[in-house]
This record gives sequence, C-alpha cells and structure tokens, in this order.
Amino acid sequence: MQYFSIDEIKGWDRFYRANFINSLQGFKPVSLLGTVSENGSPNLAIFSNIIHIGADPVLIGFINRPVEAAPHTIQNIELTKQYTINHIQPSFVAAAHQTSAKYSADQNEFEETGLKTFFLENFKAPFVAESEIKYGLELVEIVPITHNNTFLVIGSITHVLLKEGLIQQDGFIDANKAKTITSLGLDGYYSTEPIARFEYAKPGKEVKKIS
Amino acid sequence: MQYFSIDEIKGWDRFYRANFINSLQGFKPVSLLGTVSENGSPNLAIFSNIIHIGADPVLIGFINRPVEAAPHTIQNIELTKQYTINHIQPSFVAAAHQTSAKYSADQNEFEETGLKTFFLENFKAPFVAESEIKYGLELVEIVPITHNNTFLVIGSITHVLLKEGLIQQDGFIDANKAKTITSLGLDGYYSTEPIARFEYAKPGKEVKKIS
Repeated sequence: MQYFSIDEIKGWDRFYRANFINSLQGFKPVSLLGTVSENGSPNLAIFSNIIHIGADPVLIGFINRPVEAAPHTIQNIELTKQYTINHIQPSFVAAAHQTSAKYSADQNEFEETGLKTFFLENFKAPFVAESEIKYGLELVEIVPITHNNTFLVIGSITHVLLKEGLIQQDGFIDANKAKTITSLGLDGYYSTEPIARFEYAKPGKEVKKIS
Repeated sequence: MQYFSIDEIKGWDRFYRANFINSLQGFKPVSLLGTVSENGSPNLAIFSNIIHIGADPVLIGFINRPVEAAPHTIQNIELTKQYTINHIQPSFVAAAHQTSAKYSADQNEFEETGLKTFFLENFKAPFVAESEIKYGLELVEIVPITHNNTFLVIGSITHVLLKEGLIQQDGFIDANKAKTITSLGLDGYYSTEPIARFEYAKPGKEVKKIS
C-alpha cells in the first residue's frame, strides 16, 4: 500500500492534486443538468456530484461549485425553480463532456454540442432527447456550504421519463441495460457490468443473491 | 418512452417505490464507512450516498439517514470526530452488503462479516484491510437536512491509502484497475469498463480523448 498524508497532498501541483482528489471518491452518477434562463435560453451542463437524499419525499441533491466558477445552472434554477437531470449513454459521452467548456450565458450548449432538447408540457426546463433515463425536479432549497462557497442544491422529483423495458418486477430501474455511464475523477467515463443484486440483509443470516 | 408523474409514483407500494427512486439517480460511489465508538468498539456500514464537495480544502460529504434508522455511524463520528471510507472490491461485495443488516451497537460488523480491520497510528477509526483504495477523514460539520431529517456529514481527508500502481501520470487514480465497484439502487453492484478519458473542454474546440 502507498500512504499519503494530507500535508503531502497539499504540497502537490494544483492539477495533479485535483485529479487525485476528484478520483478518490470512486464512481459517480454523472448526468446532464438542463435548465432555462428567464428569457427562455436553454442551458446544459455536466455534473457528477449528484446524491440521493431521500425517497419519501423524493429528494435529490447536487453540489454546485462557487457561483463565480459555475454560474449558469444555479442562477437559472434560482430564477425558474425547475431543472432536469439526464443520464448519459455512450453514444453522446463526448458531447456531454463538451458541455463542461466555459460557454457564455448566451450560448446554448444544446446547439453547441448537437444534443437535442425535449420538453414536457407545463415544464420549462429542457430534457436531453437522447437520454434513456431522465427526470424533472422542482427546487426545494439551496444550502450554502460555507467552508468552500459551494452549494447543495436540493430538488424534489416531479416527472420521470424512461426508455421502455427498464423497470424490473420490484421497481428497480435497470440503468445498466440502458447503458447509463458512470464517471471517475474529472474526465473519466465508464460502462458497467452486473456483479449481483442481493436480498435485504439481516443479522446472522448469510446474504443471498436476487440475481 | 414511459412517463411517470410524481403523483402516480406516490401511489405505488412502498418497497416498489423505494427501489424505483433509489435507482433513478444512476451509479453511485458505494463504500464502507468505518468508525469506532467511545469505548473502542469498531463499526462498519455500507453507504452509497457519498459526494465530492471540493478539492481545496479536500471535503467529502455523505448522507446519513435519520438517526432512528441509522444511528451508529453518525453517533460514533460525533463522538470521535474520525471515520474512514473504503472502496469495495468484488471479492468482498457480499460481506459489504451484509453490513447493511441492523446489527446492535455492541455487535462488531468486522467480526460478523469476516472483514479485517487495519489501523494507522494516531488515528482511531478502523480501515478495511481488504480495500484497495481507502481514506481517513476528520469531521468538519454535520448539516441537518430539515425536509426529511437526514444529515449531510462533511469531512476533510487526512490520510489516503492506495494499492501500488494505481496513480496515473497526472494524478488520476485508476479505480477501474483497482476493481472498485459501483452500486445502483439499494442492492445492485457493478464492475466497470473504461470508455474514455477526455481532455479539458473548451468552447468551439472538438473534445479529444486522453486515453
């Protein structure tokens, strides 16, 4: 095993350290966040720091970097209260990564990357047409993280769109069958292979596979 | 595409809905959290809702369910201020899932599942000896999420332990080479296959692969 103390890590070059720290957490639920500005201009940006907060009520959070570094998504959400989260499939992973470029507020990442919008009636934020698993959210709360000026943006799911045939008998959504990708670090993208689903675990009983 | 409104989802059976909602977010950085009680008893529990908050300072968060549902990890962290996060490899995925069983506070999940502890000098919380990528943290803040009585527990990384040969030239940690798994929903576990790493994206330039 290699050992590193935080004091050693702090002394490293900024980019080397950013790659190291960002990959330490393991594989992430990378997705495209769709929003719209007050004047109706669509925005699309890739986010990997997305987290399930609870199933009842249905709350999902994501970390938005400091406003200076990543202004558009959070500003649009504050103004319109709505956004979409769209899984990424391998056929558009390069376009998805391209949305991380620093486009200006008046540039539309859908047009810049060739991804297509999809709209639901009575919901302002754009979905990614190509995405096989996607959901719409209403803003619940923006929690400031005071230690580094980031924000935990909490939303409540209002709409879900899924490709046909992904839902298993017990409600589990087979994102592996949809070919949803996962990410590592700032720029690594991966497909998945099933290992197992396990039954609900109980003390003193050996855990069994569902599939 | 199949469409579901939140009103329809709310009407579903509780377990079906929990499987559905928990898999909607996609693949997660599932890991084992190691803590120790005030009287020195080790605790180990599987968590998938882990999130990178920032690289400078190095902050990682995780969602702890309401204290009634998941008391031991958060209580140990409040008392001792230290914990470890350990990636899971396929050789011990069943043992890792088994830590989700409702053991009492005086039961030691390491003993119950056969996983081995590893300790660093001057750091109280136990690491999982079998884990190929693991890190120790000091508690920074516990942020209550008022909407559902969960908590965002924020920690600062102090120690990192990695298997030899995982760090690429630019600091990226190859968790795929370490065979770190990812999870989906409440009970699905997956291995990964590389698609690509991409260069830093810039407006107007086609994104290129690093590898």
